Amino acid sequence: MHTPKEKPFAVIGERLPRYDGVDKVTGKAIFGPDVTLPGTLYGFILRSPHAHARIRSIDTSRAAALPGVYAVVTAADLPPAEDTEHRYARDNTLAGDKVLYAGHAVAAVAARTPTIAEAAARLIAVEYEVLPAVTDVLEAMRDDAPILHEEMRTRSLAGRGDRPSNIASHFRHVKGDPARGFAAAEVIVEREFHTLTVHQSYIEPQAATAVWSDGGALTIYTTTQGAFAVRDHVAWLLRLPLSSVRVIPTEVGGAFGGKNTSYVDVVAALLARKARRPVKVTMPRADVFMATGPSSGAVFRVKMGATRDGRITAAQAELYYAAGAYPGSPVGSGANVMFGPYAIPNGQIDGYDVVTNGPRVSSYRAPGGTPANFAAETVIDELAEKLGLDPIEFRLRNHAREGDERLDGGTHGHLGGIETLEAARACAHYNAPLGDPRPGMRRGRGVAHAYWGNWGGRSSCTLTVNGDGTVNLVTSSVDLSGTRTTIAMQAAEALQLPPERIRPSVGDTDNTGYADVSAGSRTTYATGIAAIKAAENIITQMRARAADVWGVPVASVVYANGVFASGSDLRFTFAELARLATESGGAISSMVNVDVPKWGAGFSTQIADVEVDPETGKVTLLRYTVVQDVGRAVHPAMVEGQMQGGATQGIGWALYEGYVYNEQGQMLNANFLDYKIPTALDVPLIETIIVEVPYPEHPFGVRGVGEPPIIPPPAAIANAIYRAIGVRPDRLPMTPAHLLEKMGVIGNR
Amino acid sequence: MHTPKEKPFAVIGERLPRYDGVDKVTGKAIFGPDVTLPGTLYGFILRSPHAHARIRSIDTSRAAALPGVYAVVTAADLPPAEDTEHRYARDNTLAGDKVLYAGHAVAAVAARTPTIAEAAARLIAVEYEVLPAVTDVLEAMRDDAPILHEEMRTRSLAGRGDRPSNIASHFRHVKGDPARGFAAAEVIVEREFHTLTVHQSYIEPQAATAVWSDGGALTIYTTTQGAFAVRDHVAWLLRLPLSSVRVIPTEVGGAFGGKNTSYVDVVAALLARKARRPVKVTMPRADVFMATGPSSGAVFRVKMGATRDGRITAAQAELYYAAGAYPGSPVGSGANVMFGPYAIPNGQIDGYDVVTNGPRVSSYRAPGGTPANFAAETVIDELAEKLGLDPIEFRLRNHAREGDERLDGGTHGHLGGIETLEAARACAHYNAPLGDPRPGMRRGRGVAHAYWGNWGGRSSCTLTVNGDGTVNLVTSSVDLSGTRTTIAMQAAEALQLPPERIRPSVGDTDNTGYADVSAGSRTTYATGIAAIKAAENIITQMRARAADVWGVPVASVVYANGVFASGSDLRFTFAELARLATESGGAISSMVNVDVPKWGAGFSTQIADVEVDPETGKVTLLRYTVVQDVGRAVHPAMVEGQMQGGATQGIGWALYEGYVYNEQGQMLNANFLDYKIPTALDVPLIETIIVEVPYPEHPFGVRGVGEPPIIPPPAAIANAIYRAIGVRPDRLPMTPAHLLEKMGVIGNR
Repeated sequence: MHTPKEKPFAVIGERLPRYDGVDKVTGKAIFGPDVTLPGTLYGFILRSPHAHARIRSIDTSRAAALPGVYAVVTAADLPPAEDTEHRYARDNTLAGDKVLYAGHAVAAVAARTPTIAEAAARLIAVEYEVLPAVTDVLEAMRDDAPILHEEMRTRSLAGRGDRPSNIASHFRHVKGDPARGFAAAEVIVEREFHTLTVHQSYIEPQAATAVWSDGGALTIYTTTQGAFAVRDHVAWLLRLPLSSVRVIPTEVGGAFGGKNTSYVDVVAALLARKARRPVKVTMPRADVFMATGPSSGAVFRVKMGATRDGRITAAQAELYYAAGAYPGSPVGSGANVMFGPYAIPNGQIDGYDVVTNGPRVSSYRAPGGTPANFAAETVIDELAEKLGLDPIEFRLRNHAREGDERLDGGTHGHLGGIETLEAARACAHYNAPLGDPRPGMRRGRGVAHAYWGNWGGRSSCTLTVNGDGTVNLVTSSVDLSGTRTTIAMQAAEALQLPPERIRPSVGDTDNTGYADVSAGSRTTYATGIAAIKAAENIITQMRARAADVWGVPVASVVYANGVFASGSDLRFTFAELARLATESGGAISSMVNVDVPKWGAGFSTQIADVEVDPETGKVTLLRYTVVQDVGRAVHPAMVEGQMQGGATQGIGWALYEGYVYNEQGQMLNANFLDYKIPTALDVPLIETIIVEVPYPEHPFGVRGVGEPPIIPPPAAIANAIYRAIGVRPDRLPMTPAHLLEKMGVIGNR
Repeated sequence: MHTPKEKPFAVIGERLPRYDGVDKVTGKAIFGPDVTLPGTLYGFILRSPHAHARIRSIDTSRAAALPGVYAVVTAADLPPAEDTEHRYARDNTLAGDKVLYAGHAVAAVAARTPTIAEAAARLIAVEYEVLPAVTDVLEAMRDDAPILHEEMRTRSLAGRGDRPSNIASHFRHVKGDPARGFAAAEVIVEREFHTLTVHQSYIEPQAATAVWSDGGALTIYTTTQGAFAVRDHVAWLLRLPLSSVRVIPTEVGGAFGGKNTSYVDVVAALLARKARRPVKVTMPRADVFMATGPSSGAVFRVKMGATRDGRITAAQAELYYAAGAYPGSPVGSGANVMFGPYAIPNGQIDGYDVVTNGPRVSSYRAPGGTPANFAAETVIDELAEKLGLDPIEFRLRNHAREGDERLDGGTHGHLGGIETLEAARACAHYNAPLGDPRPGMRRGRGVAHAYWGNWGGRSSCTLTVNGDGTVNLVTSSVDLSGTRTTIAMQAAEALQLPPERIRPSVGDTDNTGYADVSAGSRTTYATGIAAIKAAENIITQMRARAADVWGVPVASVVYANGVFASGSDLRFTFAELARLATESGGAISSMVNVDVPKWGAGFSTQIADVEVDPETGKVTLLRYTVVQDVGRAVHPAMVEGQMQGGATQGIGWALYEGYVYNEQGQMLNANFLDYKIPTALDVPLIETIIVEVPYPEHPFGVRGVGEPPIIPPPAAIANAIYRAIGVRPDRLPMTPAHLLEKMGVIGNR
């Protein structure tokens, strides 16, 4: 139902071949584990089998003596900790006095072959004093819980006094008068929700190859979302000048936030320094599950009230996020997403960041947003139901607009959320009949709506003009999702050149300006702005060169459609002037760094049709539609891919994924057989509706795209399940067992 | 005797450790042949045994069928020639219808191992029709000489009509009235000189590794003096857009002009494309001698006249340079050097570029200058002798000054030649007694003086400021001689930071601005200017950031000695501001491209003491001094190294080096046993005297350094030999046999 705007662009909006496409399809692209330097040794990291234990001693002598072993390292090889934050990062690299999760790195070996490295690691004798472990966030908050960090004190507003605690921090946002708001409500819904830890499940494991010059310069080839983030992290932990660390990012085989953080780079660097050879460390899959940064398991208590005419009067939420072994859960971002789309006059949000005996959590696509949205949008749906309102209509009545104050502080910028909801309400799917269920089955349709703030941040882009009129484009933004193409398209648009004249590539930390991680849906947006500015700068320089050659005032030189002109006679194509200009007067290039202070929020409304088998609790997705405001679709096919991919991962959160721990805090399903992610057999062809409400701060109107679509699936599916079988799921994943419990078919587990 | 100037610099003039020093000493640095990508195949080039032959047929079928062979290529795999220049380059890559020198590439094979590749190449059946060959430049000019290029017509001023010829071109410079000049002379000397082809004799052979993406992008790792030169050459021969070729230069193990030109890059690229695997081609030493670009063998006829009071009235010279198989000898540059230091009122220079059945010549450190200087400075010495003048005094009386018209056109810029000669005249060596010869030996002291024009050209430099106040410096100028260090020192001086805060590196064609080859003694000079401009730009940006932070006008922010300040209170160290600034507002970086239109000439005066054994003709160097105006010695130890290395290579020209051909035009000494270069046993510790006449167009006064010192050694040694044994050598190298001939001990060979 989306009506395309008249198209003012030549390149933006085209479905072009990806610059990196062929090599990724044929297998020629070099990913992290593919890097092999001459003489490379293989690293293996020995990990704790215990979720919580004191390390009494580590004896590496037998490992070091094994033929073929070049280096063995432990935390003793790391510079001492400087402060708490540094100590957390140091201990998460190689454990200090304690291990805090099963899979915690304890020591590492570099050897001639991976087999020798692993065999040597098994010869390292670690003496542990095993301690009780806690993996559940609520249990971790109990007074009698095992304490992970003795020095950690509750910085709680609720205040439990000055004694050890697993609560790393607590924040509270208050707006208006929540009590008065609830008093004014005519309908109130209050619910509790529980969600599990899930993993980004990228296919490519973390892998880094480190090599030192004898002059003390360190080069690391690594799969990461941010070469500079790795550089800064490694330099910080190893106390090196930033200039002496060069990080060369490889192609990335999936990341989704999980490669914002560095895991094996420091270990590879330590081993390589000791071995005086290149060392590659590739994580086995089980280690990826147990020892990288999944998302938080969380608990939510949500209460919302509304008047009979469908106005929300108050909202309140408590969010408890398990951070894993060290602080830093995305509870703040969860609070940001929670009631994000709505203008709510009164409310309170309490957020708790709680350490538990699991891997330290990291970002996962819209960090913290998916479970928070599940909680809030289930309650919204229940409110709409109780008010007898169409769920989209109810959301529209309460939708935020530009300038509205948010419940978690700040005010909204330019929004396309209403247009997104309206497009969803008008679309074919929402207006189609559900169809008859198969015999014994039940069908339902659910809707959910999500806000995501997106990001701008620091980006860099360099354009250089070649003598034949082709242009090289280098960014320091790692390409996770086709951003080489979307950034080059923006440069081509701004240069008024065909996109095949641009050759984009990703640089490294030595030869590009600083860029923040490719995350927060920022890359096409912010690095695109850098590319546009660089293009404008190129045109300015070339106009000056043309003016020089012609001996006319610069102001008389105009550029359009690839041609420089002055008066009626003087003409240069871009390529002609490029040839002339590069042969004298120096090369034409532009390196632009930006720190983009404003960015447009994104919205995604999703519609799920499900069929539930009430006997088995199995949920089948019949039809699924993602409606999303992307500001401007630079490359619609890739935007659709993001919408489909995000929704698919959200469907994983909804129905399948979750870490399962035993009593000892050991993960039981650290592999892709037991940790189920959705496959093509589980998900219908996801329909996409692109809404374009151009963001005014970007020259072409671009907003972030990647994260919004992962947020609404659990709520949309939960709401559909409710309409199918009449019970409201309150746990993720919504397994058959959970639904059977909810239906009373089986008892509470 | 050089009096150091008061030192206004903090970094310039210091003898710092080289940034690349440790890795080069320990063997960690990666040179061309060290590059190994996973799955690399090895290329071998089959070369013609004949110096001149028509290719009747090439049958590659048996080679292609050998197990382990992945690709076989011939000229048929190259795009067709576009014009004459393109055809020459194409044919010199892989021979078309004819081979023009022994060693001419005919076909190439890529295989799993080097042994298989070579064995396969030997299975290629090439049917040749052998033609008579000519390797001597004068013989090649004879009417009955074998013709290399049927379509080549004499573009001679002398004019031999429109028929095939080996004379590729002829130029003539005339100044004043030569006939009147000679009529006014009271003393005239006229001589003929012959010199042989010599090789740069870099230790590292040419080596390139090429790999294609399946998307059609080509990456080449290669040892070269100019990554962009290789890129442009490869794209030109393979008809690729410049943007699709990325050249990554390796460390360079000696080049001296010989790696300005591309030899194996295109073949590696062709093989890699066909094999769909990385292919490395490394030249064997014999191929390096026979099939890269040595310098020209040449013949000179020189006539000079002077008045009794020591004024040169006229000079005339004919220069005949053997170009090898295709045009392009450095005869023009030889003519530029020939009478370069002197103000001569009347004169004529005729230069001939002549093709011969040898490898196509290329640049060798001060191309064409060493033999031309040998001829001219021997005649100058003889004139001084006949006039009874001290040879330095005679040169000073005739020395050119700024604004003087040159014999070969143009006018002189800012010169330090007189200061150089005066420093030589005043130095200890020139004023020391020769000492008594060993029994039966004779001693002599000779002087020669040389002009070299140097170069500016296109350079690029990028500086990026890191959050800890360190700075990365990237240039596209390949570092042959320590220029990473000398450029970083200039950046450090301009940034007013300690040099260890800068980390310099060499970029590639994708991520840097264009740079001309590192040649013509231009790199420290021109790329230094780019670095200084980039540094100034960084300071401008940082002053603005400081003003922003402080809320003061930019004009109030001053920078000195690593500290930004405004008023009496506000202070930021560079590192403090770097941290603040890089955390907001975007990275601080500057990419500067320059095309430096003016540069300062260099002069080198050299003094040689020799002892000659009149029975054997053996020459022993007793003492050797190089005096040179370098404008400003950025790094005096490296400047001295250039002076010593250049002189040593000039000594090789003088006494040892030369291609020896048989009648069939095959090189007889294509190895380091039979082609002798000077070793530490042959050369005394060369004394150096740095003269600094700052060049006003460079902020720190820098002039080119690398080339001037190779020019005077043959003349200085010839003049010393004359003073020892009373005969004037007129051939290079001045072998014992040549001296014995000259003395009449043995007959003319």
